[in-house]
This record gives sequence, structure tokens and C-alpha cells, in this order.
Amino acid sequence: MSGKLIGVGTGPGDPELLTLKAVRVLNEADVVAHFAKRREDHLRGSRSNARRAAAVHLRPGVTELPLLYPVTTEIDRAHPDYTAAITGFYDQSADDIAAHLDEGRTVAVLSEGDPFLYGSYMHLHVRLAHRYSTEVVAGISAMSGCWSAAGLPFVQGDDVLTVLPGTLPEAELTRRLADTQAAVIMKVGRNMPAVRRALARTGTLEKALYVERGTMSNGMTMPLSEKADDDAPYFSLILVPGWERRR
Amino acid sequence: MSGKLIGVGTGPGDPELLTLKAVRVLNEADVVAHFAKRREDHLRGSRSNARRAAAVHLRPGVTELPLLYPVTTEIDRAHPDYTAAITGFYDQSADDIAAHLDEGRTVAVLSEGDPFLYGSYMHLHVRLAHRYSTEVVAGISAMSGCWSAAGLPFVQGDDVLTVLPGTLPEAELTRRLADTQAAVIMKVGRNMPAVRRALARTGTLEKALYVERGTMSNGMTMPLSEKADDDAPYFSLILVPGWERRR
Repeated sequence: MSGKLIGVGTGPGDPELLTLKAVRVLNEADVVAHFAKRREDHLRGSRSNARRAAAVHLRPGVTELPLLYPVTTEIDRAHPDYTAAITGFYDQSADDIAAHLDEGRTVAVLSEGDPFLYGSYMHLHVRLAHRYSTEVVAGISAMSGCWSAAGLPFVQGDDVLTVLPGTLPEAELTRRLADTQAAVIMKVGRNMPAVRRALARTGTLEKALYVERGTMSNGMTMPLSEKADDDAPYFSLILVPGWERRR
Repeated sequence: MSGKLIGVGTGPGDPELLTLKAVRVLNEADVVAHFAKRREDHLRGSRSNARRAAAVHLRPGVTELPLLYPVTTEIDRAHPDYTAAITGFYDQSADDIAAHLDEGRTVAVLSEGDPFLYGSYMHLHVRLAHRYSTEVVAGISAMSGCWSAAGLPFVQGDDVLTVLPGTLPEAELTRRLADTQAAVIMKVGRNMPAVRRALARTGTLEKALYVERGTMSNGMTMPLSEKADDDAPYFSLILVPGWERRR
């Protein structure tokens, strides 16, 4: 009897935003895996946001399986070396998990936000779901956590919502921002200058909110127009609310 | 001392998909309000999906405040009578809640899915947030619940995700479906024939999934191309997954 692979959404950071189902699954799992940066982040114990949000719900002594990215931002994402390193890493991670599944164990993989919304868990799912029983526990997405914490009504009625990776070319960001009622820009990071220009060109800069770790105790939300620098961590977000005619 | 208004996301239907925060807030609330259809649905006790998902977490004897829609589908949404009826209803509901807040009570308003993602709670929030202390508890959206339950990896990398109300004109649905990697079509209902034609014209019908009550025990998910009729409840969804090159 093979075990079961479970992708568990741990939400946007606030440990209270885990679902009851996530808590139950974490309690029942034999092995809990999480993605994290290699190097000092892991050794110092700061680990991943998903690991931190889930920490209080792990059984004492549960087997943990950290999956340590071989690269993060040292190599450009477009470079073949990056693709080779990251593909090999996902292959190896899937093999490590498969070894536990073959022993009949239940393996929960922590996933920040919602697993199927840009989550790293997806790379394991497509490698293993055809061979093993799987389940995915939806999580609160970063965007939901952030617009809720900011008290920012987002889309209503016939509004279109567009979710845009900030890594898109500036011209495409501009075109799409001009053609939607509401937008979320993910993965801002070093793309902030281009994102800011695209917002300015479409007249949406004034209503854009910048959010860093939106639901965490050290989080920060501010109008983007008041942010003086272009420094932004990879996991920061920009929110452009819709529903112009509120009533 | 005025009370506090709390919009509480109750998720997509499965009671286990409430967050820990939602459960705590429901336990602490003096009054729990929920939107529901007037008429037999309420009287027979079937009530709202949000009320059903939250039921086990309500304190025995807590004050309940059902907010009963004066109209649902009897009048066309574009008709002035509809606007007048629904605006008056939200005004009255806000007044009813304000009366509790003025007595210092905490009022939790149940909201299916995520409150600020097309939720009725938004209409109360914009009427009351400038006068009272408010908090919004993010909920698992219907789309997250559905793609998770269906085991359907949705967006990854540079994918754009477009969330479309099915109430949009067919030409606009078609244009937008042709210009995105992944799409969610909400509020399908009686717009199914137009939605189906827009999907067919953009070559996305084959990969579209049709979902009814996706995370509930009586839920149903099927390829849209295998659905023979165009009957769909208002809260059904269509999912068009992205991430073509899975690896």
C-alpha cells in the first residue's frame, strides 16, 4: 500500500489563516515537507514562511523533510543553468518524497498561500500525481489575505480581475493594466521600476497599494505613490482595487 | 463604545475550509448575520451556503440576523426596479446592523468564499466602515476550493490569470479568453450558452471544467465538453487551467 501525497495551503502568513482542514492534515501526516532557501536562512532556523505559519500545528517529533532550493536569485531565471538546476531539484525532491510514499507514509507538503496558485508544490504534484494518491488542501492566497487585512473591497458585479506576474514585459503589464477593472501584481521584487511605470502610464498608480508580508505581524501596507524607493522583496504584492462605483 | 463589524469569509462550502480565525471570530461574536434568499429556502431551513458551512461553529443561542434578499432572479438585473430594490435592501441591512453596533455588540457577517471577492458583504462594508471599527477575515475563494478539489494545477510562472463574470457580453468574454493563460468564469447561471460559445471560439472548450458546489458533499465536477445541457446554477464555475508546459 502506497502512502498519500497532500499539498497543504498554509495561507499568507498569519497562522490563524490556516484552515481547519490544513490543521487536521498536518496532525495526521507522517512526514511534513517544506521548500526553503539553502544556506543560512535554513540553518538559522528562520526557514520558510509556510513552515513558520504551520509550526504550532506540527506534531512533536514528526519527520520533517526540508526541500532546499539549489538557487534563488544568483542565476537569471532565463539562463539554461537556472532551468537545469531547478528541474533537477524538483526531480530529486519528488524522488525523496516518493521514497516515503513507497513506505506507505502520508506526506504533507507545505505551500505558502494556495498550492495551485503559483505554488512550488505544483512541480511535485505533476511529477507524482499519476503514480500516487493525492489531495490538495486550498489555502488563503496572498492576495486575499492582503486585501482583507487592508480593508480594501476588491471586485464586485461585472468587474474583471487580472492577476499578473510582475515578471512580465513592461509593455504587456501596461496593456493589461489598461484593460481590467482590478489587478493584482505578484512577484514584484526587482521588477518594481517597470511595474511602477506601467501603473503610471495607465492612470492606476494613485490607487495602487504596495504590500509586504501583508498578514504578518511585521507586515506593511502603503499607497505605492508614497513609497520612495523601488526596493521590494520577491513576495511583495501590488493591489489595484476595482469596484469604482461603490454602493 | 460602538461595537465592531466583522466580515467573515466562510469559504467555498466544505465546513473544514473555514480558517481558525473565522472559527474564533464566530465564537466571539454577539450577533451573526447572513444573507439568504427570502421565501421557502429560508423557511425550510436550507438557508445560505455560508450559514450551512458556519453552522457547527455558532455558539448556541447566539443572536442571528438573517438578511433576506427582496429579489433574486425575478427581475432582470439591468432593470431600474432591481437596482432600487437591492439598494434599499442593503441600506436597510446596514441600518439593522448599525443598531447592534450602536449597542456595543460585535456583529459577524457571514460571506461565502472570500468577502472582498464579489461578496455581498462589500455592500455593507462600504456603508459602515467609515463609521465603525471593522475587520475582514479572508476566506477560501470558490475558485481555489474548486481547483484544489479537482486536483487541477492552475497557474505557474509567468501565467496570467483572468477572473471573468459570466454576465459579461459574449464578445468581451471571447476577447478576454483569447488573451490569457488561465481563466475562471464566475456566475455562469443562465449565461452558459454564451460562455460555451466563447470557449469554443477560443479553443479552450476542450480543457474547460464545469464545477457545481465544488467542495460540498453533493458537488460535481466534469469536463464542460461532456455536459449535455446548459442548465447551471448561478454559483457554478468554469475553470480553464493554465501552465501548458508542466514540469
